[in-house]
Amino acid sequence: MKNQKAIILLSGGIDSATCLAMAVKQYFQVYCLTFNYGQRHSIEIECARKIAQGFAVKEHKIMHINLRQIGGSALTDEIPVPHNRELLLMHKNIPVTYVPARNTIFLSYALAWAEVVQIGDIFIGVNAVDFSGYPDCRPAYIKKFEELANLATKIAIEGIVRFVIHTPLIKLTKADIIKTAKTLGIDLSLTHSCYDPSPDGSACGVCDSCLLRLKGFSEAGSKDPILYCYKK
Amino acid sequence: MKNQKAIILLSGGIDSATCLAMAVKQYFQVYCLTFNYGQRHSIEIECARKIAQGFAVKEHKIMHINLRQIGGSALTDEIPVPHNRELLLMHKNIPVTYVPARNTIFLSYALAWAEVVQIGDIFIGVNAVDFSGYPDCRPAYIKKFEELANLATKIAIEGIVRFVIHTPLIKLTKADIIKTAKTLGIDLSLTHSCYDPSPDGSACGVCDSCLLRLKGFSEAGSKDPILYCYKK
Repeated sequence: MKNQKAIILLSGGIDSATCLAMAVKQYFQVYCLTFNYGQRHSIEIECARKIAQGFAVKEHKIMHINLRQIGGSALTDEIPVPHNRELLLMHKNIPVTYVPARNTIFLSYALAWAEVVQIGDIFIGVNAVDFSGYPDCRPAYIKKFEELANLATKIAIEGIVRFVIHTPLIKLTKADIIKTAKTLGIDLSLTHSCYDPSPDGSACGVCDSCLLRLKGFSEAGSKDPILYCYKK
Repeated sequence: MKNQKAIILLSGGIDSATCLAMAVKQYFQVYCLTFNYGQRHSIEIECARKIAQGFAVKEHKIMHINLRQIGGSALTDEIPVPHNRELLLMHKNIPVTYVPARNTIFLSYALAWAEVVQIGDIFIGVNAVDFSGYPDCRPAYIKKFEELANLATKIAIEGIVRFVIHTPLIKLTKADIIKTAKTLGIDLSLTHSCYDPSPDGSACGVCDSCLLRLKGFSEAGSKDPILYCYKK
């Protein structure tokens, strides 16, 4: 039997689109939340819009918040996006594309909206295999946010809702996620992963996110349908 | 000996101004963070600016975020602010002036900024005595956010900083806070507490926040220097 409602954090990438497709199978009404946060790759917002439309979600809210006021990341500040890094290095060091406290900010807004629409189930497409370096993608962090949510809000305190942060991709590799996405019928040509796209929207092919995406497609034995310009 | 740096959430009310004054005594450099979040009483932002200037803080950041996109509170939505409620009632029920997940959102931004400027000490002027109804003002919530902060961020994971959420007012009544504020030389005429001010900026005198403020001044045996219009 389907559950009632869920909120999905939707970035426009493969992971969150897959999360959304998984939630749509389990819930009658799905609410999507996307952030225009001053990210270098704001093209992903248009992708998120098309993906949400494709799934006929109940509501898609695009929050405008300006993390450039805070900066400190290659995605929100005047810091170059690293090119052609080795995968081993990605695992070892938290990269400059890490945005300080981003998932905490995103989940906080999801929590606020969830409280207003009285939804306990929140989905986030974090996965700890390919990007184990990001602190706010790990299971211990997610568990702690879930505990916080149940202390932070009126509807949890009053017993109306119990918050659960769902992370259905947490143990999947990028290849696993791509296979799942295809099984669920997601049009992957609508997704965007690149941190540093060209003005025409084509992916750079050399940032960490492109490298992981391309590796994922390769391991999944399928072809990535998006355009790459392979920046020098 | 003074510590190095701290971040203070500054709303423009008595509590956060007192928090700021306390921090200024303990830290060399104080960074203030204020939110223009679409609040009905946005006049408090100007108060915050004057208070921060008075203390010659190192930096005062005013974040523009629009919680009206989420709504669900008398402060951010088309819900009337309750007038002349009994204090007993304020303690029993979480009022409609509660803004869903507000402190979680505010603390998340403080955490993001703290990470960029590498500051571990974050001050928030919550107090659990007079407004025990708000879930995100209680000690258990604050402790949980502190735990989250130390899992959520690169600088905590790498051992560069340990986050501490300071709540120096948590056990004080409003009267205690007012006495402390006066001892610390805060110009309380610069502070603003009213949820529903008149266009001329005078306080309504009848919302929960005004009632608690007036009761606090009365119990502290002093006169509130701000203007009231006492709305009908």
